[in-house]
Amino acid sequence: MKLSDMGERKLTYKITSEMHIPFDDCAVIEREGYYEVVTTDMVNARTHFPEGTPPYHMGWYAMAVNMSDLAAKGAEVEAYLVAMGLPRDMEEENYEEIIRGMKECVDKYGGRIVGGDTKETDDIIISVAAFGTVEKAKFMPRKGIRKGDAVYVTGKLGRGGAALRDKNLDELLLIKPRLEEGRYLASLGKVNACMDLSDGLASSLYQLMKINGKGFRIYGNALPVHEMAKNYEDAIELALYYGGDYELLFTLPPEEGGKLEEHMDITKIGEVIDEEKVVIVADGKEKMMENRGYEHFR
Amino acid sequence: MKLSDMGERKLTYKITSEMHIPFDDCAVIEREGYYEVVTTDMVNARTHFPEGTPPYHMGWYAMAVNMSDLAAKGAEVEAYLVAMGLPRDMEEENYEEIIRGMKECVDKYGGRIVGGDTKETDDIIISVAAFGTVEKAKFMPRKGIRKGDAVYVTGKLGRGGAALRDKNLDELLLIKPRLEEGRYLASLGKVNACMDLSDGLASSLYQLMKINGKGFRIYGNALPVHEMAKNYEDAIELALYYGGDYELLFTLPPEEGGKLEEHMDITKIGEVIDEEKVVIVADGKEKMMENRGYEHFR
Repeated sequence: MKLSDMGERKLTYKITSEMHIPFDDCAVIEREGYYEVVTTDMVNARTHFPEGTPPYHMGWYAMAVNMSDLAAKGAEVEAYLVAMGLPRDMEEENYEEIIRGMKECVDKYGGRIVGGDTKETDDIIISVAAFGTVEKAKFMPRKGIRKGDAVYVTGKLGRGGAALRDKNLDELLLIKPRLEEGRYLASLGKVNACMDLSDGLASSLYQLMKINGKGFRIYGNALPVHEMAKNYEDAIELALYYGGDYELLFTLPPEEGGKLEEHMDITKIGEVIDEEKVVIVADGKEKMMENRGYEHFR
Repeated sequence: MKLSDMGERKLTYKITSEMHIPFDDCAVIEREGYYEVVTTDMVNARTHFPEGTPPYHMGWYAMAVNMSDLAAKGAEVEAYLVAMGLPRDMEEENYEEIIRGMKECVDKYGGRIVGGDTKETDDIIISVAAFGTVEKAKFMPRKGIRKGDAVYVTGKLGRGGAALRDKNLDELLLIKPRLEEGRYLASLGKVNACMDLSDGLASSLYQLMKINGKGFRIYGNALPVHEMAKNYEDAIELALYYGGDYELLFTLPPEEGGKLEEHMDITKIGEVIDEEKVVIVADGKEKMMENRGYEHFR
């Protein structure tokens, strides 16, 4: 069987099950009194970036997607390692622009780049490892959802998909990791599960379903669709099945959610149910949400 | 200017100076009472591995080169993140072999793989980030060399170069990181500077010269040339200018070295001098060592 027949999530499952790694945005190393939270994301110019993407955007994006994983765990960012594969005929100026994009993202969101590696590759490959810390009691795992939990997202949905269609590279790639929101959510100590929306809402809900053995009822009319997506007739398609939003998806007891809405730009989009299925209700009708979203090797 | 005109070390210098990163095998994060030591190395099948390299060897090598960086700092290995870029037409079985190589290397040398990422790339790219810990007083930096220090290496030199010529993939790629040796050296608290020999002895000495503002007098007849290299007429070329040995190069006060030789397979190969130059003496003649070795983008 070829990897393209397996898809990214099966590939990942293979290695995580082999190594007994919990399926989460980040891995956890136990320290005295806190968790060190670590993650790695590799981006590849050919498969991640539309043609004509400025190197500055590549650098920013590579850092920000890693920060987004830390954000979903409620972590304070601390440090990064950056390994880059670069083509030999790349212009020095483009290399400098990648670094500038990384540096400005880090200057804005915190932590520092402590080391790295550069190697020669055919394509531009940027592999970042990011470290952060979080108090044990505040860590927000993917696994921990309870029946009756309210389901929330930060910000709006469909921005990533619309930006891709619009070829709006700033909106698509200069993403704003929800670090502040993640830390605030973590500080409450009420969130039962959290993950980032890099793969799209539908795919993320199905991943949470698998890990938690619980399902979701999503309120179709409540979805906070982004203005950019509303320009498209199939805005709901962009909100559900396109990746790249990098918002946080989380669940908590419903009575906690109400209070929280006064302090944060969040929207209740549904509730946790006992059956292992993901349904979307709109205008009195209920239907199954499709299990699809962005996936590499597909 | 193109990256191929700059070479890997200039590229690295650009980013490290921009980010104020000390030039060392690993980066250091300060923790209470100890250092967390972190490093990343990316390997690329096309530029790192001879044709026909088994995927098992790729997995092992990718882990081991990172361990070697931790070894040079005297660290205990703790955890790894593995980001892989894989071609979509790769066979599942080859993917499994890469993982098996990684796993067996980790089982043998310690630590655990805590997380990772898989993405689609044209070539096979493996980017590992490795974490370890070391007591502050035992950390062995690259910078710290003192005039009069004796210069030592562990093991033998030229194995990597000879293995490349012999197409002996086991010797070339199933490398044995000197973790135990590194920890023992660190435990003495006498080593003033240490680095691993991934780039070859000459290149490593020049790197230490630049960082420390001191030079080296190397004893040509004392170099511990590996049996595999002795099969070649230009064995000394393999010992000095080829990378891939992954031994440790370190300096310490000469009186400490003598005691140490009784406990470890190490060889005194020279001494630290005040002038910023690297000379090799053999049969009464002294000449400059050339500043060359393996370097990407060259």
